[in-house]
Amino acid sequence: MINNENILNKLQEENIDSMLVFKPENIKYMSNFFPSSFSYIIIKDKPILYVSSLDKETAQKESEIEIRELLSKDELRKEFQGNTAVEETLDLRMANTITEDISKLNISNVILESRAIKTKEEIEKIKKSIKIAEKSIKEIDFTGTEKEAAASLEYNMMKNGSIKPAFDTIVASGTKSSSPHSVSTNDRVSTPIVVDWGARYDHYCSDITRTFIESERQEEIWNIVREAQQEGIKTVGENVKLSDVDNACREVITEYGYGEYFIHSTGHGFGLEIHEAPNVSFNSEGYLKENMIVTVEPGIYIPGEFGVRIEDDVLVKKQGKVLTSIDKKLDFTL
Amino acid sequence: MINNENILNKLQEENIDSMLVFKPENIKYMSNFFPSSFSYIIIKDKPILYVSSLDKETAQKESEIEIRELLSKDELRKEFQGNTAVEETLDLRMANTITEDISKLNISNVILESRAIKTKEEIEKIKKSIKIAEKSIKEIDFTGTEKEAAASLEYNMMKNGSIKPAFDTIVASGTKSSSPHSVSTNDRVSTPIVVDWGARYDHYCSDITRTFIESERQEEIWNIVREAQQEGIKTVGENVKLSDVDNACREVITEYGYGEYFIHSTGHGFGLEIHEAPNVSFNSEGYLKENMIVTVEPGIYIPGEFGVRIEDDVLVKKQGKVLTSIDKKLDFTL
Repeated sequence: MINNENILNKLQEENIDSMLVFKPENIKYMSNFFPSSFSYIIIKDKPILYVSSLDKETAQKESEIEIRELLSKDELRKEFQGNTAVEETLDLRMANTITEDISKLNISNVILESRAIKTKEEIEKIKKSIKIAEKSIKEIDFTGTEKEAAASLEYNMMKNGSIKPAFDTIVASGTKSSSPHSVSTNDRVSTPIVVDWGARYDHYCSDITRTFIESERQEEIWNIVREAQQEGIKTVGENVKLSDVDNACREVITEYGYGEYFIHSTGHGFGLEIHEAPNVSFNSEGYLKENMIVTVEPGIYIPGEFGVRIEDDVLVKKQGKVLTSIDKKLDFTL
Repeated sequence: MINNENILNKLQEENIDSMLVFKPENIKYMSNFFPSSFSYIIIKDKPILYVSSLDKETAQKESEIEIRELLSKDELRKEFQGNTAVEETLDLRMANTITEDISKLNISNVILESRAIKTKEEIEKIKKSIKIAEKSIKEIDFTGTEKEAAASLEYNMMKNGSIKPAFDTIVASGTKSSSPHSVSTNDRVSTPIVVDWGARYDHYCSDITRTFIESERQEEIWNIVREAQQEGIKTVGENVKLSDVDNACREVITEYGYGEYFIHSTGHGFGLEIHEAPNVSFNSEGYLKENMIVTVEPGIYIPGEFGVRIEDDVLVKKQGKVLTSIDKKLDFTL
């Protein structure tokens, strides 16, 4: 069940009379309806969803909050008197349209903060999304090109109940694995193979990485990354500093002499979007809180040689609870 | 070859000293590099691309403009003196970060206007994207569920050279076809089947719809939509009012008594994004210009019964040149 109490309370605390929400993920979060065309939510005493005629039928089925038809610009402007907030993702032209008569524009993070802490229903959806992703990798075929492997993984996920990939599936093999954001190419797959993939179940993402290795040198690096990840996961827990999780991973990798090759943060929240608060980085200032879900994904990327990354999804409780259950090392044939 | 003269000239005309560009599609447009992480372009005398270490290697290969490393916030702010523009897609928090010391924030459409007119290279890429989409529908399998059909179409496109679908593929069959933005479901495919799909070749979209029909009633509606589309396409040409193209389609459908069931605009531009300027609608005020590419996609959606849409991609020359070449009616088996 949708529960917007949190957001309404925060608006009251911050003395905000009304708020305009545009971001599709935020609309889904507050109404359970994911818009396919221009839509918004106006929050006053309670949130009300405004949809176009294209979305009306679906919104009536899915929305758990009241629905109305889109307002004209003049009507919209009249809605906003007093202390108004507009979510910060709103583009500037739109903000100007609405607020040129309004004295104060208050930017607020309330929805994104609320989204960082997952509800019971959201945790269940993310678990299903993880299951779909895990089931689909078991059927992956590495005998063709990187692109073909990525295409078949995405096809499997969709057949297994994903509405689309959580992001462009990465199959980065051989020396190309040394770039963390490598794009799948038309090259035949070689080792090591970094596969970073995720499903979307009812718009909720999963996010996993496995690296398929062959040589001793690859195994050596893989073992260091795995040890770093274990230390990171051990550190996860309620009220733990975000930077402590990053440090735990980074220390292991640095001890082995590869510190300069761990060139990204340790992890991030995800849910309706693949990157959400919190950011698990050495310079993050916040704390983990109960029911956040974060990735723990250290990596070592040796330029010109290869890269290894291992990524799992962890639910924050008193101690971290790893939601991914697929083996760290998977069998494969080339 | 990337040519930013157009944009630089417009900035000069509007007396803008510097501009900050964030939108990934705009960065691709101005540099030929599509960022995978936070990046921006600063335009002063010439555009310069700023990328993170994650993107550096790829950017060095792909960018046709000068590359530098991301600036700190303080350095970034120093770059902007005088009359500064920030693209309108920039979120408000970011704009505030950069401009709190700057007296004037000028919102400009220059890049989006430039993108509406396609270069020779862009037209070639869109043609390839159309070819991929057309080749891939020939191998589609309707013997399973709507989702399975969509998954196999997306898989075919990826195998044929698409980096990802231009948008979530729509396979809407039976009564579900009466919603223009229907989502593919786990239902077994029935008729009519509205398939709306597109590929991305080097980030450039294609956008096609075909409706697979069976009964006489379905054929009757299909013929009206086809006639409407033909009238619309005939109207396309340089310096034609956008609303005239919409009117041409709408008049045919209205004459047959289905006017109230044509519930969306006739078409839209596309390129690096699936929806770009211009909007081909009854209330559009502009004109078609040479080398715009637009969809012409009238439809009739009878609530509770079914819907039909036919969509082709048209290049604007003295007369419209239809880029899609696949048959309007395709063979299929259920």
